Amino acid sequence: MREYFIEKADANLPQIRKTVIKPDTPTTLLRKGDSITVDLGNHYVGYLSFKMWFADEYVDAPVTLRVRFFETKMEMDYDYSSYGGWLCESWIQEDTIKIDFPGTFSLPRRYAARYVRVEVVHTPRDFTLSDFEFLAVTSADVSSLLPYKSSDPELSEIDRVAVNTLKNCMQRVYEDGPKRDRRLWIGDLRLEALANYYTFRDTALVKRCLYLFAAADRNSLGFLPGFVYEYPIYYPGSWHIVDYSMMYVNTLCDYYEHVGDREMFDELYPLVLDIMSSANNCLDSEGILTVPENDMFIDWCEGLKKQTAHFGVYLYTLGNLTRTLEAMGHPDAAIFASRLEEGRAAARRVLYSEELGAFVNERDGGQYSVHANAWMVLGGAVTGSEAARVMREVISAKDSVKPFTPYMHHYTVEALFTAGLHTEALEYIRNIWGGMVKLGTDTFFEAYVPGDPSFSPYSDNKVNSMCHAWSCTATYFLRKYEIK
Amino acid sequence: MREYFIEKADANLPQIRKTVIKPDTPTTLLRKGDSITVDLGNHYVGYLSFKMWFADEYVDAPVTLRVRFFETKMEMDYDYSSYGGWLCESWIQEDTIKIDFPGTFSLPRRYAARYVRVEVVHTPRDFTLSDFEFLAVTSADVSSLLPYKSSDPELSEIDRVAVNTLKNCMQRVYEDGPKRDRRLWIGDLRLEALANYYTFRDTALVKRCLYLFAAADRNSLGFLPGFVYEYPIYYPGSWHIVDYSMMYVNTLCDYYEHVGDREMFDELYPLVLDIMSSANNCLDSEGILTVPENDMFIDWCEGLKKQTAHFGVYLYTLGNLTRTLEAMGHPDAAIFASRLEEGRAAARRVLYSEELGAFVNERDGGQYSVHANAWMVLGGAVTGSEAARVMREVISAKDSVKPFTPYMHHYTVEALFTAGLHTEALEYIRNIWGGMVKLGTDTFFEAYVPGDPSFSPYSDNKVNSMCHAWSCTATYFLRKYEIK
Repeated sequence: MREYFIEKADANLPQIRKTVIKPDTPTTLLRKGDSITVDLGNHYVGYLSFKMWFADEYVDAPVTLRVRFFETKMEMDYDYSSYGGWLCESWIQEDTIKIDFPGTFSLPRRYAARYVRVEVVHTPRDFTLSDFEFLAVTSADVSSLLPYKSSDPELSEIDRVAVNTLKNCMQRVYEDGPKRDRRLWIGDLRLEALANYYTFRDTALVKRCLYLFAAADRNSLGFLPGFVYEYPIYYPGSWHIVDYSMMYVNTLCDYYEHVGDREMFDELYPLVLDIMSSANNCLDSEGILTVPENDMFIDWCEGLKKQTAHFGVYLYTLGNLTRTLEAMGHPDAAIFASRLEEGRAAARRVLYSEELGAFVNERDGGQYSVHANAWMVLGGAVTGSEAARVMREVISAKDSVKPFTPYMHHYTVEALFTAGLHTEALEYIRNIWGGMVKLGTDTFFEAYVPGDPSFSPYSDNKVNSMCHAWSCTATYFLRKYEIK
Repeated sequence: MREYFIEKADANLPQIRKTVIKPDTPTTLLRKGDSITVDLGNHYVGYLSFKMWFADEYVDAPVTLRVRFFETKMEMDYDYSSYGGWLCESWIQEDTIKIDFPGTFSLPRRYAARYVRVEVVHTPRDFTLSDFEFLAVTSADVSSLLPYKSSDPELSEIDRVAVNTLKNCMQRVYEDGPKRDRRLWIGDLRLEALANYYTFRDTALVKRCLYLFAAADRNSLGFLPGFVYEYPIYYPGSWHIVDYSMMYVNTLCDYYEHVGDREMFDELYPLVLDIMSSANNCLDSEGILTVPENDMFIDWCEGLKKQTAHFGVYLYTLGNLTRTLEAMGHPDAAIFASRLEEGRAAARRVLYSEELGAFVNERDGGQYSVHANAWMVLGGAVTGSEAARVMREVISAKDSVKPFTPYMHHYTVEALFTAGLHTEALEYIRNIWGGMVKLGTDTFFEAYVPGDPSFSPYSDNKVNSMCHAWSCTATYFLRKYEIK
């Protein structure tokens, strides 16, 4: 079956669209120790080239240049001489190149950048750099972008940056980040696909990505890997993530809702059944989904207790799947509807503290978090005015654990909408995505904590991805809820 | 005229011949900090590629490798962490590369190497390197190589290494060194052309190079630049060297002698006349060629007094030119014969010390050097048994200044042959070129001082060229004098 699914995926391999960006940079005379900074005018993903030419006299030795690429202005101030993070240092967008002959030089690697800095490491003589070009690549067709107009400049800017983030993550697959990790993750895929339905409407790319996961091995419990590689060969990731596996089910349901491709749904439905059975098999004696914390994601948030949130993902998935099956008159709808009913009751019984009026799971450390409460709202364990109160309290509480990534910010906003708190949802969007916009960015970040813009999940923000797919959904909310 | 001469040169642009070298290197598992050394089995010039593949699991970040190329085994022991020479550090054959995807990776730059070391700087996981290939390039047609057979293993090896040196310097032009400086110098051209007449017999490449210099600007005194660049554009060097300009005349005479192309000789003869008039104009009141030391080369030899040797180059050139013109019955032969006569007399009168029985020029510091005496022998200022005595004494004297480069070693050997000292000439060849062979090399070096193999003209031997054109002439002597 793997070959079949990969074939299906490759039948939807997108065209890579290329645009030559010509920044307005004058011919610059350089000598050893000098540097030049080029502003591309926007954040792009692609390939840099420039012309190196001698000044007074032919440059009689190779010229050694260090070329750094920055996704945001603030990255230009980082000290790149040391790196202390736990992700591979190779992710830092820096290359040292030697140019043997005057002429046009093209760097072979792909970068994600708004700014480029070229430093002269060694040269025997003065030389000039000029004719900088950046061949920007994306599989998004910008001519198909649906319009969004707001009289509010902040909302317009949030939408622009969100769409740009999505565009630059759209390549051969939905990449999580074009700087890092440049691969297809389920959690990012789902959010990119949602934003895409309201912007570029490139449904073939969603289809391709869904088939790429269908081709993956599942682990002994029946769950999907969180990510796959597809170039130069197909290779599924080894980290099987339970909530991401369920997000696959949600992504397929979304796809059916927006595209209505019943044949595809039916073809992938056996995988849906397997994932949902696997999750069902993980319910403990009290009816709560229980897996090791290593097997889930939820958020990059140190010390976060995730069991409640994780169970919320299960309920949320059951809800979406039930609705989708009901809409198509599928006989299995009742099975999932009944599991959802039982799950919601278990959540209420085991995870809710009547005394505190919130989901504070004593079995899991008694932690009060936005994550747990938002996911319980999304899972329908509380509804109506009760859900509104739970959400209002948890996002404003001083002592509640708050999200660190726009991935969890997304589901927090979705929970606010679900709880009918449209005003609070918009305020939250202005605080998070508007907060990033205030830092002067063209793309939204992998991680964002208001008041701590240098936070990194990797102990060193030099490897943070500053154009990260899962943060593109501000456009989805603005457009879906017609906030103008 | 420049365009015309460049056109003539480009009509003789050689074909670059490619051979894939597959070193016998097993698939090697590597992790951060590891390194692998690949032995190409011989010294080649060209392009490296290899296959990077993941081991247990897909390599989920770019892999950063430092790749170093060594022309000789001894270079592998150098400490490359610091460089203190006065030539541009970019000449060191080292590149840091990042590999984004498993597969075959080709380094874009050309290198000169027998050994390659790959060090793992950063990697997120173990990976393998395998399938090393080196695409060797040269414009020499090895199938046209004339045979040389000797029963003496040392002479066979000297010939093999000399021919290999020549082969690897034969590219779009006769390069001085394929590692450094990779350009066409007159002094190197002459010696490469001489060796070539007895080995590959590629006369078109000599023709091309002669026309490339004809296209150059001459300086205010009428001399040629020592070197030219011809890629990607034609650009003549700015260092105009008087002895190299005269070597141009010798190279054209050699070409006529070996190829007999009278039309070409006549076309370039105006340039010959100009150069010889310019030299004649530099004779001082005593009839000695006098130019600033900056305007000549002779040898990389600190503290060397060069006036006598330089005047010897002038006499030697007059001798070759006169012989060539006489052979073709040219009316100008008598002019140069008479200048030669006067020059030899002046040399004897002004530069020779009867008391010391050697050329020890008191006007120029009274230094006793192989350079001065060899060039006087080559210029015919002493002949016969007197020349033999002068040469025998100067090469064996403890206090004489000795040559540092195989360029000057060449003319020393030629002077020994001129003085009829065939046994001493062969001994000298065994001492210099045999000395390099004993170090275990596949090519001859830019600089070689017996007993000091790490000597560098640039304060740091890491930029020394270890495959250098001007050292290839051992094969010329062995074959011309049929030494077997």
